[in-house]
Amino acid sequence: MGTLLGLEELIKRSLAEDIGTGDITTLACVPESATADAKLIAKEPGILCGIDIFKRVYAIYDSAVKVETRKLDGDLLVERDLIATVTGPARSVLTGERVALNLLQHLSGVATQTGKFADAVSGYKTKIVDTRKTTPGLRVLEKYAVRVGGGANHRFSLQDGVLIKDNHIKAAGSITLAVNAARSAAPFTLKIEVECETFEQVREALDCGADIIMLDNMTTAQMREAVAIIGGKAITEASGNMGDKNVAEVAATGVDVISIGALTHSVRALDISLKFNG
Amino acid sequence: MGTLLGLEELIKRSLAEDIGTGDITTLACVPESATADAKLIAKEPGILCGIDIFKRVYAIYDSAVKVETRKLDGDLLVERDLIATVTGPARSVLTGERVALNLLQHLSGVATQTGKFADAVSGYKTKIVDTRKTTPGLRVLEKYAVRVGGGANHRFSLQDGVLIKDNHIKAAGSITLAVNAARSAAPFTLKIEVECETFEQVREALDCGADIIMLDNMTTAQMREAVAIIGGKAITEASGNMGDKNVAEVAATGVDVISIGALTHSVRALDISLKFNG
Amino acid sequence: MGTLLGLEELIKRSLAEDIGTGDITTLACVPESATADAKLIAKEPGILCGIDIFKRVYAIYDSAVKVETRKLDGDLLVERDLIATVTGPARSVLTGERVALNLLQHLSGVATQTGKFADAVSGYKTKIVDTRKTTPGLRVLEKYAVRVGGGANHRFSLQDGVLIKDNHIKAAGSITLAVNAARSAAPFTLKIEVECETFEQVREALDCGADIIMLDNMTTAQMREAVAIIGGKAITEASGNMGDKNVAEVAATGVDVISIGALTHSVRALDISLKFNG
Amino acid sequence: MGTLLGLEELIKRSLAEDIGTGDITTLACVPESATADAKLIAKEPGILCGIDIFKRVYAIYDSAVKVETRKLDGDLLVERDLIATVTGPARSVLTGERVALNLLQHLSGVATQTGKFADAVSGYKTKIVDTRKTTPGLRVLEKYAVRVGGGANHRFSLQDGVLIKDNHIKAAGSITLAVNAARSAAPFTLKIEVECETFEQVREALDCGADIIMLDNMTTAQMREAVAIIGGKAITEASGNMGDKNVAEVAATGVDVISIGALTHSVRALDISLKFNG
Amino acid sequence: MGTLLGLEELIKRSLAEDIGTGDITTLACVPESATADAKLIAKEPGILCGIDIFKRVYAIYDSAVKVETRKLDGDLLVERDLIATVTGPARSVLTGERVALNLLQHLSGVATQTGKFADAVSGYKTKIVDTRKTTPGLRVLEKYAVRVGGGANHRFSLQDGVLIKDNHIKAAGSITLAVNAARSAAPFTLKIEVECETFEQVREALDCGADIIMLDNMTTAQMREAVAIIGGKAITEASGNMGDKNVAEVAATGVDVISIGALTHSVRALDISLKFNG
Amino acid sequence: MGTLLGLEELIKRSLAEDIGTGDITTLACVPESATADAKLIAKEPGILCGIDIFKRVYAIYDSAVKVETRKLDGDLLVERDLIATVTGPARSVLTGERVALNLLQHLSGVATQTGKFADAVSGYKTKIVDTRKTTPGLRVLEKYAVRVGGGANHRFSLQDGVLIKDNHIKAAGSITLAVNAARSAAPFTLKIEVECETFEQVREALDCGADIIMLDNMTTAQMREAVAIIGGKAITEASGNMGDKNVAEVAATGVDVISIGALTHSVRALDISLKFNG
Repeated sequence: MGTLLGLEELIKRSLAEDIGTGDITTLACVPESATADAKLIAKEPGILCGIDIFKRVYAIYDSAVKVETRKLDGDLLVERDLIATVTGPARSVLTGERVALNLLQHLSGVATQTGKFADAVSGYKTKIVDTRKTTPGLRVLEKYAVRVGGGANHRFSLQDGVLIKDNHIKAAGSITLAVNAARSAAPFTLKIEVECETFEQVREALDCGADIIMLDNMTTAQMREAVAIIGGKAITEASGNMGDKNVAEVAATGVDVISIGALTHSVRALDISLKFNG
Repeated sequence: MGTLLGLEELIKRSLAEDIGTGDITTLACVPESATADAKLIAKEPGILCGIDIFKRVYAIYDSAVKVETRKLDGDLLVERDLIATVTGPARSVLTGERVALNLLQHLSGVATQTGKFADAVSGYKTKIVDTRKTTPGLRVLEKYAVRVGGGANHRFSLQDGVLIKDNHIKAAGSITLAVNAARSAAPFTLKIEVECETFEQVREALDCGADIIMLDNMTTAQMREAVAIIGGKAITEASGNMGDKNVAEVAATGVDVISIGALTHSVRALDISLKFNG
Repeated sequence: MGTLLGLEELIKRSLAEDIGTGDITTLACVPESATADAKLIAKEPGILCGIDIFKRVYAIYDSAVKVETRKLDGDLLVERDLIATVTGPARSVLTGERVALNLLQHLSGVATQTGKFADAVSGYKTKIVDTRKTTPGLRVLEKYAVRVGGGANHRFSLQDGVLIKDNHIKAAGSITLAVNAARSAAPFTLKIEVECETFEQVREALDCGADIIMLDNMTTAQMREAVAIIGGKAITEASGNMGDKNVAEVAATGVDVISIGALTHSVRALDISLKFNG
Repeated sequence: MGTLLGLEELIKRSLAEDIGTGDITTLACVPESATADAKLIAKEPGILCGIDIFKRVYAIYDSAVKVETRKLDGDLLVERDLIATVTGPARSVLTGERVALNLLQHLSGVATQTGKFADAVSGYKTKIVDTRKTTPGLRVLEKYAVRVGGGANHRFSLQDGVLIKDNHIKAAGSITLAVNAARSAAPFTLKIEVECETFEQVREALDCGADIIMLDNMTTAQMREAVAIIGGKAITEASGNMGDKNVAEVAATGVDVISIGALTHSVRALDISLKFNG
Repeated sequence: MGTLLGLEELIKRSLAEDIGTGDITTLACVPESATADAKLIAKEPGILCGIDIFKRVYAIYDSAVKVETRKLDGDLLVERDLIATVTGPARSVLTGERVALNLLQHLSGVATQTGKFADAVSGYKTKIVDTRKTTPGLRVLEKYAVRVGGGANHRFSLQDGVLIKDNHIKAAGSITLAVNAARSAAPFTLKIEVECETFEQVREALDCGADIIMLDNMTTAQMREAVAIIGGKAITEASGNMGDKNVAEVAATGVDVISIGALTHSVRALDISLKFNG
Repeated sequence: MGTLLGLEELIKRSLAEDIGTGDITTLACVPESATADAKLIAKEPGILCGIDIFKRVYAIYDSAVKVETRKLDGDLLVERDLIATVTGPARSVLTGERVALNLLQHLSGVATQTGKFADAVSGYKTKIVDTRKTTPGLRVLEKYAVRVGGGANHRFSLQDGVLIKDNHIKAAGSITLAVNAARSAAPFTLKIEVECETFEQVREALDCGADIIMLDNMTTAQMREAVAIIGGKAITEASGNMGDKNVAEVAATGVDVISIGALTHSVRALDISLKFNG
């Protein structure tokens, strides 16, 4: 997943949070010379995501711990799949376990959930994309998990996309004024998106040259009509109350992307565990 | 919730993550002098948690934004409840919104979920407690949300509790050797807990003076018998596969605490939104 | 200039760098109770930039120092203009002076230089934009100074713009393959720019839907022809060897933007000084 | 240049500033397995400075990138000189390029400029020294570049030199009182310097035992007379309005050092580029 | 001593504090190519503590410096004992020396002092324990040194032990109310300790189930009686004015632990020096 | 003591170290609304140092806590002296107490000890100075305490003083070569000190222009002769085995400064306590 600036700091903070002044149980009960030999096992089906981060946690905590991977990010897991083996000093394997697993289970949960939505729209050109409703501190990782699960990314931060919402429009005076202001002030490398709730707004956004039009909280029928009005002259994004039940129907309207906050704000961790050999 | 060391850093990191080099949309479309007047509204029922953190996000981002709260942490919310009003410079209200909401919705999700489990065992002395399966970076906040939701806390880190698991026992040679090692090496201010899967283990743990006995992956019937064996001479903790369906049944066995990883590793954000007044 | 995340840290680092373990001269020679009354004066003409940062340095070092501004960012300065008055504890005024001035003089230097280029193209629609050739640690401030001086911004980082250069093209196989790869992998909120050195490349970039075409190291005549080929179907950017002598001529070719590294990599500080009243 | 504490942090911050959440162009267009082979070439004559820092940027970003140097800091460059070869993973070579070059070009600019001043006074004993008018965050590096260019260093911070200026004198009551105060309060390991604008001040500074006398904004004739008055009993420093035109003339007055702010506050980056082989 | 999170940061801060912008003496006088060969020697008898940290300082400053240890933490030193040899680049050996020695001498001082107290009570079951009266920034290291010297640890922070003092009792209303409040609010993994000054308080603490009873500022006779009252139903801790003269007498009363602030707040550094071979 | 950069970070780190995830005892037992009223009392005679830092700890932890000082740094304390009153939220007064006291007691210990040495040489011109044998992380504070106690400071770091020791001399070839190297490479604002063990070394150091000569491990008689040889042409510093018994005798030899490592490496905390009013 490329070199991730900041990942090392995130892992160190997470280890500090979990270990505090020391893993007193392990230091007391496990001799310094003891070695461990463990298996990382899927306890339920899903999409693996974060195995390199799992490795990185151990590399940062104690580079003597070796993680050999049998599965890669994006692989479909079935129950009991062997994901990796973990060997090395028993103290370090035990002390680093929780942080490594917490990250892996969370990211695999995001990927698995995204995969379900992606599958649901697989017959359409429509892409499933994320939002900024991410877990504080984990945005880059969660957006990576969305891609691993078959989705695509919306902007990473307020820096790398212009998204004009109703309050921006009110403050600027009109959609046209807002779009012009953004075109003048923002880096010219960014597309300009406008959130629209009515056909009239869609038309105004189109007329003043918006690059992306968000169809916010529209019915499926309204979205279909909006897509027709836009006629390919802007990218279309469906947003609001997207669930696993209606996502295919929304895709059928012809929208280009469907953005879903729940991909990252309501995640069920994938059950993965580390089993120590006898 | 007392002064939380580290909270300021968490909020600053979250703001940096979300804002990047600047909220270009707002800077372009909203005049510096514009003011906003918004309402924080519950969109579904649940338990509020994190309103002070919501306030703190704005206090850190721009102290000119004023948040007046109408609900406090622990309050039960019904749909459309007014939680707070937010007024101040429109740019700052808009730019800080996402981070403030992400934290509030996540913590309220944890509290709401904990509340459901706590309600399920309300007829018993049993407490619902959390685990170390928390979101990296958010442990102290999530454990606070568990308390707000009616649960109690297990240890906060590997520093403040001795929990001897199967691997520690294997490494030490026996439960008795492990407990003695911990008693000798750990600060004497900490209780010693032993994870047991059989009655034999329960008896050994009891004999060597364990303060807490975890009944791991036992059936309800087995737990009932274990509780009888222990006879109040140690605190009992039920762990493994605890769900909203069986939790009352487990409580009925007489265990003192039930620990549930899903309280914090599988959270559904509570739907709360910031509505700007026309 | 909005709330700048990271500015506080930059100022604290700069103060630490300059002060070390203490301003021993001032501590030795100036009584704690002494007050100072000083004037911030332009010693040469230029465009002011960074006066809020100058204030912020003192606010961070010692909030008892008061800076009253008479000029704002973007104001044209003539020699001897009074920019601000600085009053407060003499020790703090003296100790904070160098860091406050270093930032102010550098940013005013960037704005002044940008202003000269912007003036040179003022009869054309063409915008002067910056590059990523900025001083390490000062990018957001320098890009702000470019805007203050009458220029506009190219992308702020590798995150918020797709710029496909010759090496990316070689690695991808062709311009078309590179543009398609970027369209698939990058957030859909970003425009895609391609660096072109020949008309053939320009045509391929146009055909595969590039949003921005950089005309790299072309002669003025070549640029004029390239602009004609593109015919408004993409934004055009002139780049390479842009100096104060040829920039108007380049603007006359009809390009939309001219990017100039020297705006930020070769800056002459504007001479501004703090004069203490007798 | 010795182990530089803080350099790693500076480079990491610079990389984070430039890369943000990721180099999306390179990640999209360049396969993970692609390798690059590039040459670092001087595009104009000058003095090289910062090649070890250039290497260090790559070592920190991705240690798989190998930089083999052909020139060392202090070497005179002519146009087209090969400075180094850079080989390794194409993604990393491309993503780290800008930060590595920005630092190298800036420091080589400082060294080249210093070299011109040093050459101008080469027939005299006089040294060219820097000031505290450095780029925030880069002081130690820029002072290193001054040495590489043939200059010497004035104090690094307010901690490691006592420099009594007019405001310190006013606050202390007289030059004599200020020098005595500094002698009493500052570490006895530091020399005491006094800024003088008149011969009377020079005489007082000399009488009370100043170790260094700064001749501030004097004419060449005045400096010559001041040097005669001092007669080797203190180090003499010429300061104020020193440019490439008058520096030799000033050196001819017999001053020991000439301090020049422009060495670091008004730098033109040396043109150096990274060329990828076909 | 296990992997210590935060140790790397402590060492880097200490090196930065000592080295500042550079060890100018060494850089000037010692050629880059010079090597050093030195011996780490005990100059007085004591208990060694911190030799791994000594090694770590050099590993962090310059991994080319090799430290070969002849003694381990906990070893009794006699005057002139060879503790380790240090070889490598002379510059790095010299520049890192002070920080490495400062830590080693301080921790060995703590261990040596603790050892004297531990010896004094060696005929009893009583343990010597530390307090929170530690040097800011060094707590985990100093508590490690206490263990190395033959002592044991009280809580590491306010997080991992409940210690109810007189002010807590006043605020809660009574010992019983305070203990109940703590039992309800604190993680159930922690023991509850109550500070008692009278027998009445001891009895109340015992009755409400305190796990540990601190006998604060009692005479030896009073302590003996308190131990009798408690009769093994709680752990007993003697505290207040414990010195090397009365500690054995206190141990003879039968208390379980004696806590001594001076172990860490009044430390005499052990004399250890680095001798360079001719 | 002027504005101390870095002090805020030191205090925050110290609070985090002491509080961990929370002061569970105080949160459980003390109501949020309770207020406290306490007195800071000297329990033994000494010199107060650090009262502003004591205040700062509370200002940082909770600005609602008010500290009113009755004594200032440098004041002589007798037993039972009232140093300050502390009032405010009881929770915050209790939770911040330990860190505030640990710093105050340590620094007052340094000042008190320095005062004893300073008194011993009060009849001579000789100054007592510190060394770099300070507690990691506390150097600037400890050096401040030395000044408060009546001593003076040697260099603060390797940056702000040239001290040529035996190993530097060996590496450079001779004292003369070392001094010349330092004069050429170090900022000209720094004095050059040479460590000498023989009269021959003293003479060579004097001849090559050393500014300060350290008389290392000489007998009193030897020091007297060395002082005579030097004859005021350099500052003289006595070093090595300086204790409270011989320091006056050493001062009588006429040396300018006596440096004593024990001022900061072997500190006995001054007994100061916070008493809560009934």
